[in-house]
Amino acid sequence: MYKNDIILKAAKGEAVERVPVWLMRQAGRILPEYRATRSRAKNFIEFVKNPELACEVTVQPVDILGVDAAIIFSDILVIPEAMGLPYQMIEAKGPYFENTLVTEQDVAKLRIADAGDLDYVIRAIQLSKKALDNRVPLIGFAGAPWTIFSYMVEGSGSKTFSKAKKFLYTQPALAHQALEKITLSTINYLKGQVAAGADMIQVFDSWAGVLGPEQYREFSLKYISMICDALSPLVPVTVFAKDAHFALHDMKSLKCNTIGLDWTINPGEARTIFGNTKTLQGNADPCMLYADTKTIEQEAKKMIAAFGKQRYIANLGHGLYPDTDKERVKFFIDCIKQN
Amino acid sequence: MYKNDIILKAAKGEAVERVPVWLMRQAGRILPEYRATRSRAKNFIEFVKNPELACEVTVQPVDILGVDAAIIFSDILVIPEAMGLPYQMIEAKGPYFENTLVTEQDVAKLRIADAGDLDYVIRAIQLSKKALDNRVPLIGFAGAPWTIFSYMVEGSGSKTFSKAKKFLYTQPALAHQALEKITLSTINYLKGQVAAGADMIQVFDSWAGVLGPEQYREFSLKYISMICDALSPLVPVTVFAKDAHFALHDMKSLKCNTIGLDWTINPGEARTIFGNTKTLQGNADPCMLYADTKTIEQEAKKMIAAFGKQRYIANLGHGLYPDTDKERVKFFIDCIKQN
Repeated sequence: MYKNDIILKAAKGEAVERVPVWLMRQAGRILPEYRATRSRAKNFIEFVKNPELACEVTVQPVDILGVDAAIIFSDILVIPEAMGLPYQMIEAKGPYFENTLVTEQDVAKLRIADAGDLDYVIRAIQLSKKALDNRVPLIGFAGAPWTIFSYMVEGSGSKTFSKAKKFLYTQPALAHQALEKITLSTINYLKGQVAAGADMIQVFDSWAGVLGPEQYREFSLKYISMICDALSPLVPVTVFAKDAHFALHDMKSLKCNTIGLDWTINPGEARTIFGNTKTLQGNADPCMLYADTKTIEQEAKKMIAAFGKQRYIANLGHGLYPDTDKERVKFFIDCIKQN
Repeated sequence: MYKNDIILKAAKGEAVERVPVWLMRQAGRILPEYRATRSRAKNFIEFVKNPELACEVTVQPVDILGVDAAIIFSDILVIPEAMGLPYQMIEAKGPYFENTLVTEQDVAKLRIADAGDLDYVIRAIQLSKKALDNRVPLIGFAGAPWTIFSYMVEGSGSKTFSKAKKFLYTQPALAHQALEKITLSTINYLKGQVAAGADMIQVFDSWAGVLGPEQYREFSLKYISMICDALSPLVPVTVFAKDAHFALHDMKSLKCNTIGLDWTINPGEARTIFGNTKTLQGNADPCMLYADTKTIEQEAKKMIAAFGKQRYIANLGHGLYPDTDKERVKFFIDCIKQN
């Protein structure tokens, strides 16, 4: 069916002839082509909500960089919006929510979203599938409930997410109510993505690392696990919990295929923890792509030597930084593909 | 000599009758008394440079909170300033450097500071020692060279410190030159602090966690190790590398007495790594102090049960957050002292 489906094979633990590669934020500002498409939308939110433009930037990295998968262009914060908490994206500052979760009433008012509330993403997936024409699989995604909750409480990005964490310490039962609503919405949304053609799903827990091990188990992993249980019979699922070094052992029991790793994790230690039960994805430092090509080549070889060629998907340990040189990115991808 | 020196005993691995406790940022905005003293200075830099005011806020937590040590009130960025890169502290934004390290010439121009360049800190230590009158020991401190370097390159705080990391990838030899100058300056400075009366030294590597294990070894631990070698014959040294979970095994070989831990580290695992060779310090989540007193008491008990009463200094896993209630902080300290 696919001209190239090695990423699906690697995720399922099937033998592959070479290591598959894609990069988080590959549909992003490093590509002049992305910036050109982006400039046709009035602002970031309009961009995300325009299926034609979203489709364009989703497909670009497949054509330009030669990655082994596309990932639908969207934003994790479409879920809060669909649940009744709209946001703005402020240039050079990040997301901003006018209304946040504070009281019981705020949580009670949240609606459980379904895929219909996010029809613009569903439509973007359908268009992207068509445009990709089975060249490579398409990855769908959502934020992990804890990360979504932390934005809904904090109202913006934060170094510490201390407001969101305070909520957990002072109103734990209410936090669970909100997290459950977010989880149900996310499951509806991801099932809609799969129905529309997403071949794999990645769950991003961007703010995993602000929690300690016990709170992470109680307020994050529990809900990620519900998502995996609901999705994994349908498509391969990847869980990427950034900075959650303390949770790797717990993540063994998730019903997911792939674990994303940030660059602080030692590949050998991750293999020891997960054995042959999970595919590993990651974990180059995005800053490594600032180096010269000799260094990039060495690092690509080192990654493959450390993770091995099977049950491995090459990627970064975080999204591409916008000032990375497109040619170096392409060089890195070629290095992986030639090994 | 001291009325209370259990923190020194704990750091040296001597038997103590109870667990000593102090809190990072105890001399800070959670105390109305601090805010009153702070308001007498024109701005943050003037505040830091005024030995009388610095002494006042250094001693306040001993009187008000009953901690087992004072820590000199200062800022890690006095070192770049002494080396020729002055900074401003911008309200609600953080530090800002007009000039940053970019070229070889920028690094060549950096001077190696000595304690004389930081006489206002030395004077603040002398005044604080007098005001403390041997009630409890006084902790001196400095930033780790990597953290100082990262500010000198980045010019401000950053989520990713990608400019500083880019410097490591693109100009590694020049980075080492800068780091060496910072290290020599820091050793001079800390020796001056000890000569002025500091009883212990803590090295803060606040941005350890943005590096991966290999870069951390090469660009940070190497220089922390030089500082430990120079200081540890004189006074007990604590190394606190935030988010450096991946470096704990390497840190075993540092010539320091105490390892500070953030709240993502499992106490039992840290004990397994360090055995009886180091005292451990930490690692409560600062957000835990937002909880009710029942929870705070439970968490205090859990910490002591997990770390044990010997070779342990109770603290947070990061500095106190400014909106923490002073009474809860005091309650937490009392809980530790009663156990």
